[in-house]
Amino acid sequence: MGAVKTTRMPRAVREQQMLDAAVRIFGRRGYMAASMDEIAELAGVSKPLVYLYLNSKEDLFSACIRREATALTEAVRAGVRPELPADRQLWEGLRAFFTHTAQHPDGWSVLHTQARTHGEPFAAEVGELRREFVAFVTQLIAVTAREAHRDPDLPEREVSGLAEALVGAAESLAAWANATPGVTARQTAATLMNFAWVGLDNLMTGKPWTPPAA
Amino acid sequence: MGAVKTTRMPRAVREQQMLDAAVRIFGRRGYMAASMDEIAELAGVSKPLVYLYLNSKEDLFSACIRREATALTEAVRAGVRPELPADRQLWEGLRAFFTHTAQHPDGWSVLHTQARTHGEPFAAEVGELRREFVAFVTQLIAVTAREAHRDPDLPEREVSGLAEALVGAAESLAAWANATPGVTARQTAATLMNFAWVGLDNLMTGKPWTPPAA
Repeated sequence: MGAVKTTRMPRAVREQQMLDAAVRIFGRRGYMAASMDEIAELAGVSKPLVYLYLNSKEDLFSACIRREATALTEAVRAGVRPELPADRQLWEGLRAFFTHTAQHPDGWSVLHTQARTHGEPFAAEVGELRREFVAFVTQLIAVTAREAHRDPDLPEREVSGLAEALVGAAESLAAWANATPGVTARQTAATLMNFAWVGLDNLMTGKPWTPPAA
Repeated sequence: MGAVKTTRMPRAVREQQMLDAAVRIFGRRGYMAASMDEIAELAGVSKPLVYLYLNSKEDLFSACIRREATALTEAVRAGVRPELPADRQLWEGLRAFFTHTAQHPDGWSVLHTQARTHGEPFAAEVGELRREFVAFVTQLIAVTAREAHRDPDLPEREVSGLAEALVGAAESLAAWANATPGVTARQTAATLMNFAWVGLDNLMTGKPWTPPAA
């Protein structure tokens, strides 16, 4: 316990510093290549202290996923104002999402790339986050469909499909924006609104794209 | 070499049977949980013969990724008719894509889920496949923009972003369609066309979604 006694910082603060360092190393190096030595050094603590607090490399990675998922969900929730029309809600939600992923590229890399490229139980934890976003978008589309009196024409299954498409597009764009210098969160959100909402809007007002005869 | 001599089948045929079995087991169980015993049994060969032909579990998984990626790319290429207008090309491409992923759910699971959840070198191999699809969609959008004389207003970066969004949406929808009973490839492609093309079409004809003032 010697290492613990040398610090005057509360445990919670120390732990956050370790997680900050771990997200950075995991996000940049990947789970396999990340070294606990490097994480401890970046956090300014001893390696035994990291193990004492976070138990194992696997548990540390899980803790990173949970913290980053919670932060991203809270950022999007804080950005959305439920009293606005659905398109404005989606716009605010997307801006909050892309702002957060741009400000926390290592965290987004952990969630989008690293957590999914290292099997279970990590993939299941980000699956939960994804389901929450799909539910949010599904509800926005359903509200819009109801307002446009399109319920009978737009079955629940179609709404689910549109929500899946939009979330997949947002995930893909966040990774692209972080890899493309000079793209702002606002531009990325506008690209997706142009891509998605204008199409949805036409769909709602009864101007769908018509497939050629089978 | 006894096991090889007992067969009258050419090596190439045997190898395809092993890959068929491997795609099914990897796609359903995941890379870690898949057992070489089960793959050999399903292929109707001895386990040593699988190792003799495909070398290792890792090499077998890589061979599955390459075969499924090639099959999917060829299916989409065969579906697209370059003489058609861009929206019809995208429609045919999406139909071919969703038809193939619906007919080969285990292959799609290997490419979309398993290859990405087990680190390198597997993730890099599907990355190549993805870049090819993004390039195809980018070119369709660029052609459409040129036809609509929108070049100066639609910078290259915006086109890249739209293509990333569309490919992300398609990946997300393929996984959703395979997990949702009763959804046809045609319906899935129409959902994405409604989501994407109608929006793109408005964008091209100068009716973008307008973000509220900053």
